[in-house]
Amino acid sequence: MRKLKLTKDTINNILESLLKRSPSQYTEYESTVNDIVNTVREKGDEAVFAYTKQFDGADINATNIVVTKEEIEEAYSLVPEELIEVIRKALVNIESYHAKQKQNSWFTSEEGIILGQKVSPLARVGVYVPGGKAVYPSSVLMNVMPAKVAGVPEIYMTTPCNKEGKVNPSTLVAANEAGVDVIYKCGGAQAIAALAFGTESIAKVDKIVGPGNIFVALAKKAVFGYVSIDSIAGPSEILVLADETANPTYVAADLLSQAEHDELASAILVTTSEELANQVESEIERFVKILSRKDIIQKSLDNFGYLLIAENKKDAIECVNAIASEHLEIVTANPFEDMTYIKNAGAIFLGQYSSEPLGDYFAGPNHVLPTNGTARFFSPLSVDDFIKKSSIISYSKEALEKVYPDIVKFANNEQLTAHANSIKVRFE
Amino acid sequence: MRKLKLTKDTINNILESLLKRSPSQYTEYESTVNDIVNTVREKGDEAVFAYTKQFDGADINATNIVVTKEEIEEAYSLVPEELIEVIRKALVNIESYHAKQKQNSWFTSEEGIILGQKVSPLARVGVYVPGGKAVYPSSVLMNVMPAKVAGVPEIYMTTPCNKEGKVNPSTLVAANEAGVDVIYKCGGAQAIAALAFGTESIAKVDKIVGPGNIFVALAKKAVFGYVSIDSIAGPSEILVLADETANPTYVAADLLSQAEHDELASAILVTTSEELANQVESEIERFVKILSRKDIIQKSLDNFGYLLIAENKKDAIECVNAIASEHLEIVTANPFEDMTYIKNAGAIFLGQYSSEPLGDYFAGPNHVLPTNGTARFFSPLSVDDFIKKSSIISYSKEALEKVYPDIVKFANNEQLTAHANSIKVRFE
Repeated sequence: MRKLKLTKDTINNILESLLKRSPSQYTEYESTVNDIVNTVREKGDEAVFAYTKQFDGADINATNIVVTKEEIEEAYSLVPEELIEVIRKALVNIESYHAKQKQNSWFTSEEGIILGQKVSPLARVGVYVPGGKAVYPSSVLMNVMPAKVAGVPEIYMTTPCNKEGKVNPSTLVAANEAGVDVIYKCGGAQAIAALAFGTESIAKVDKIVGPGNIFVALAKKAVFGYVSIDSIAGPSEILVLADETANPTYVAADLLSQAEHDELASAILVTTSEELANQVESEIERFVKILSRKDIIQKSLDNFGYLLIAENKKDAIECVNAIASEHLEIVTANPFEDMTYIKNAGAIFLGQYSSEPLGDYFAGPNHVLPTNGTARFFSPLSVDDFIKKSSIISYSKEALEKVYPDIVKFANNEQLTAHANSIKVRFE
Repeated sequence: MRKLKLTKDTINNILESLLKRSPSQYTEYESTVNDIVNTVREKGDEAVFAYTKQFDGADINATNIVVTKEEIEEAYSLVPEELIEVIRKALVNIESYHAKQKQNSWFTSEEGIILGQKVSPLARVGVYVPGGKAVYPSSVLMNVMPAKVAGVPEIYMTTPCNKEGKVNPSTLVAANEAGVDVIYKCGGAQAIAALAFGTESIAKVDKIVGPGNIFVALAKKAVFGYVSIDSIAGPSEILVLADETANPTYVAADLLSQAEHDELASAILVTTSEELANQVESEIERFVKILSRKDIIQKSLDNFGYLLIAENKKDAIECVNAIASEHLEIVTANPFEDMTYIKNAGAIFLGQYSSEPLGDYFAGPNHVLPTNGTARFFSPLSVDDFIKKSSIISYSKEALEKVYPDIVKFANNEQLTAHANSIKVRFE
């Protein structure tokens, strides 16, 4: 983990290094993924089953691709009771937070004119859930619940199975608790293509969300436009903005909580206190030795971990905004005041007891957050992602009559005479 | 223009034909566009100027790429006074409608816990404005005003110039009235790449919006992820849902107002009244003869125009939802009642005086709308496109203490022990 004085050059170098982790960089897989997507689009089930055999070694067909009630029951018997209980508690918080994001249809009415917006849920959503080493039931909850709260009537999930055709039981339990309608045993780029174009066995959806490996990310990019997608997730990130009032043990532990995700994860401290930076450094050394994922943590810290010492608060905040971290902790004397200067961050954790993992699992806000500097323009996954809006326009004869000469002038100036005609026929 | 009985097969055939117009289909240009994008990314200004010379025949360099105050003043002297007046009137309506879309930051507070969302405007937005044959000042207003209302502090516009280095004057006037900060003389895929990655002369932005030809559309798709983009626009569409109470002259004129846009534009009547379909058909014949853009209109009607006769209202509405038209007019006995059954449409015009061109220019709602069936999941351009949200999470010591064992359990079950550690160090 490098300890550096914060300068403009430091920031630029760090940004360049972090951006190299972006899935958009992996263009070498693009043609492979495009082939898979196009083949599934043309051949449907046949291609999906063949790729699943090829990549996952699983024999999936039209009769066994959908997870059965019996398999879900079996999953409940395999998952520890305490995990099921925590899933249920977390669900209540997640639902309650997302319910506050719901937007109403609205209209204005004045003298013959009604204008407004009608808000409707998407009809069908597909949620991708990765299989493999790391299984995150919390991720199932975070992707499904905003759709559920938005009122999406049909939620389809797809996730890879193992060679024996089994899906991770905690994924199944989380999906069932969150109210997923159908679960397919299918992963990879082929699953994304199937959801985008539909096959004999897999329903075509309007939007695909959920994390995945580089093949899944590139497949989502390839089908964007045919369907909507969420933003393409990069490796996890935490940035802690701290001053001399921060507890170095807490800061170190929180930085490590993101570093353990992935060798590409990034953990950064920005502080105005050199003493704090030194203390955090030694606390990190102490913790790394005792943590179970120490190899991943060490690589992540070596490559993308920084302790940055800023000359003053202003420089520190500028750095925070430039990096636009997925997770930002503000552990200063006045965290709420400092928050007002933050322009770019996925989720902001304020104060020394707002540890980042609290947001990963439990508090309620979504843990699907913009990464890789995209917090400059993307938002956390939310109910907004599962609705669409239609403009509403209604003019009475009298209201249109008042403005029609203006509309005709505008249309004629744009040389669109059929536009002008459509207004004129009503009055001339 | 084909007149057909509405059946499931008719709908499927029409959808297939309409979707062929999607920009996503034009994969043959993808590698050309990717080359342009990558070259601009590597070489900056040098590449931008060379492509502009090659494609537009214009000599643009670092000293003349930005439109000057004098050029804007000149534009005002070239644009008819009546157009300037109408632009100003339209701006008032557009601003007032979009102001109602603004979202507030919000929070909840209970017993040591603050949760919420902070809403911030994007910092820098790029608006692409096409040059060429058809110049639409209304399009400038519709793309710039939602960003302005959202509070975006820096709005950059880019638009091609002619061989003499001149930009269309009504584009300049509209941009100036809407409050654009800087206007670049640059078009095509190279302009999109320049806005996405920045060059010596062109500012890097966070989001790019605005319509363009197929090269522009593909370039936007290529830079998606590095920056945010609006949805990729396809050709214009109108669908009129009408019963026997509709005025066939108005319906015919409104259908033609979209058909004139483009040979790929689509105009569709769905009606429960065969008599109305026949009357609209003869009114269309009468109008086409006298309209100035009759060649475009005729091709658009031949290829993508339909008069569809439904057996009943239910079938008609099902067809409307399946086609998910950019513009929908409901001209029936009870348009508001029928609107409640509409799931997919970009903008909904209710009643016989809510002619579609009213929305193009004047009423206030945005005319940048989802096309090609994407109203199933995309929304009209709005203030939402120019903001981003950050989650806010603050727990007191007491609040975290109550739930910490649950969080630790969840983290341990996901085998993320550093997550568990970050909570535990605060209490153990």
